[in-house]
Amino acid sequence: MSEPNLPAVTPYLLLDEDRVRRNVERLRERLARLAVTQRPHVKTAKSLDVAGLLFPDGPGPITVSTLREAEVFAAAGYRDILYAVGIAPSKLDSVIALRNAGVDLVVLLDSVAQARAVAEAASRSGVRIPALIELDCDGHRSGLRVDDPTILEVARILESGTAAVRGVLVHAGESYFAYSPEELAAAAENERAVAVTGAKVLRAAGFAAPTVSVGSTPTAHAATNLDGVTEVRAGNYVFFDLVMAGIGVCQVDDIAISVVTTVIGHQPAKGWIMTDGGWMATSKDRGTSGQPVDQAYGLVADLDGVLIQDLLMVGASQEHGVLAMRSPGTPLPHIPVGTRLRVLPIHACATAAQHDRYHVLRTNGDHAVWPRISGW
Amino acid sequence: MSEPNLPAVTPYLLLDEDRVRRNVERLRERLARLAVTQRPHVKTAKSLDVAGLLFPDGPGPITVSTLREAEVFAAAGYRDILYAVGIAPSKLDSVIALRNAGVDLVVLLDSVAQARAVAEAASRSGVRIPALIELDCDGHRSGLRVDDPTILEVARILESGTAAVRGVLVHAGESYFAYSPEELAAAAENERAVAVTGAKVLRAAGFAAPTVSVGSTPTAHAATNLDGVTEVRAGNYVFFDLVMAGIGVCQVDDIAISVVTTVIGHQPAKGWIMTDGGWMATSKDRGTSGQPVDQAYGLVADLDGVLIQDLLMVGASQEHGVLAMRSPGTPLPHIPVGTRLRVLPIHACATAAQHDRYHVLRTNGDHAVWPRISGW
Repeated sequence: MSEPNLPAVTPYLLLDEDRVRRNVERLRERLARLAVTQRPHVKTAKSLDVAGLLFPDGPGPITVSTLREAEVFAAAGYRDILYAVGIAPSKLDSVIALRNAGVDLVVLLDSVAQARAVAEAASRSGVRIPALIELDCDGHRSGLRVDDPTILEVARILESGTAAVRGVLVHAGESYFAYSPEELAAAAENERAVAVTGAKVLRAAGFAAPTVSVGSTPTAHAATNLDGVTEVRAGNYVFFDLVMAGIGVCQVDDIAISVVTTVIGHQPAKGWIMTDGGWMATSKDRGTSGQPVDQAYGLVADLDGVLIQDLLMVGASQEHGVLAMRSPGTPLPHIPVGTRLRVLPIHACATAAQHDRYHVLRTNGDHAVWPRISGW
Repeated sequence: MSEPNLPAVTPYLLLDEDRVRRNVERLRERLARLAVTQRPHVKTAKSLDVAGLLFPDGPGPITVSTLREAEVFAAAGYRDILYAVGIAPSKLDSVIALRNAGVDLVVLLDSVAQARAVAEAASRSGVRIPALIELDCDGHRSGLRVDDPTILEVARILESGTAAVRGVLVHAGESYFAYSPEELAAAAENERAVAVTGAKVLRAAGFAAPTVSVGSTPTAHAATNLDGVTEVRAGNYVFFDLVMAGIGVCQVDDIAISVVTTVIGHQPAKGWIMTDGGWMATSKDRGTSGQPVDQAYGLVADLDGVLIQDLLMVGASQEHGVLAMRSPGTPLPHIPVGTRLRVLPIHACATAAQHDRYHVLRTNGDHAVWPRISGW
């Protein structure tokens, strides 16, 4: 690969626009067939430029993981934003500021304490604060069980003042540990069923609950029926990674980002190739360690993206990577000092988070630098 | 704790200046007794302000892990800089630019290929490039074995032009896995012995090799004899972390940074407290997983830094932390939504790397914001 304007100094984060476009188009077609709105999660890419590939006709609905993302996207014209992390009371001043700036920012909660804080902040400020109630469908993380009477208590507290119940949200986090098409389809249907049931509980009690939000990259690609769901959140799919490839949601060739590193040495007695790409560039994420095939810190490809068979990044210091063959007996290929390699990410969200910019191979052949949003 | 000017929005990285000063003073005294120069590694803090606590009388010798660190410190007046990651040939233009700017930047290498690249770049540019030869003392990572004739071949290639052999460098990386004072002392003595032997090999062949550089935080605190060593590199000790506490190099109370998070929910059936501090704030480092006591993603303290007995951060999504008791049967303390907590880092280098600034509790009672260097 020629390197027009790519950095001389490694490591850096490379983004392949063709692959992002392919991944985006795949889910867009899928969800269009299922007749549901997409509210992509921008926490993976954290990039206005990548979001531009999702929304070629201008800003659409998005999901964010931090108020900082909300602020940057709002400044770029995004007006329909869901902040999908349970709200901390101390963040409500920032929420109110964004709503006062014309952003339909919706918060998430799953407790009476949060509902009271939101209701109080709404009353105090006179600003209407809409909230989704988080429901738990698989014991993964946060959320109320759909049979928990707290759901209605939370709704009543919100609606007692100028806060509002916008609906329900479910995230099938355990789908990351599903390993067959059947398990993935079951996770998707369970996510849908819990969300729709939760909305029915609210509506039966007189709350409109217009939004029924589900989503994760695995379930978004596995769902065959989204009746009753109004929107699907998914974020990782713009890049994909080896965790997603490991559960069969994508192929390794779909992975759109990689860390470019340089070979800086060899330890032949140990079967190691040393690179200048350590965990500072790849993250310490070991998300495939529980999968049938453990990819360690990532698969290794040449600078054109062609996989080097059975070569893995097996070790990570801060600024050192260790490459070795998957099977200790296999001879190492000859890869001299100075050679550039791509390391494919285990977890795209975590790898991208180690960088403040993307070096982009554009579809039109150009090279570009796209900044990333960071911080809170 | 009152919070003069601390952020309303969590998570953020808190730095306790008192603890940094205490940690810095402890190693300073130790190495003064051993009559050796300190060349602290700035890769942990990546902060000119923290370095200012190491060098109250102005810039001194430092070790860096990236050329970006070298450039920022050079711009702040640091002139004696060791870049302690094996040099990639494509980085030599940046090295030459720094040397031309008056910085005594020294590179590291352990191969004939690197030596040739350095010698060629020195000849081409007319700029003298000094290098340390990296020696391996424990099979941890990079470096030549001290009996490898390649050491002299590398030295000859360097000295054949305008490059130069400045000496040898050893890093006892395996000392991170030593669990008794005896093992740590043995690791320190082994590191010293290999470095001194390597320097003797060079000197016997007619190379001056003035620098004999050793160092890691564990061995720097365990060494009782550094005869023949000219400088000690250590970096983590300015902050310390739970990995270092686990091998007995520090106490938990010495740890100088923490991630401040807010409680955003509870899952009583599972014994979980949910926070807004996930791996984006703590990193995915699980460095204590192989230690006798696994601290998961970190110990939890209240906002004043007082440990909450047996409460651990056991899970980490991107922006969610899960806290639970170490023993599943133990009842959870009542910690309401909105409460701020500190999570102590497993690995200070990795946790700090997730942030672009420190929120500092100054020794004088003030609050300050100190930026961090990032990128390459």
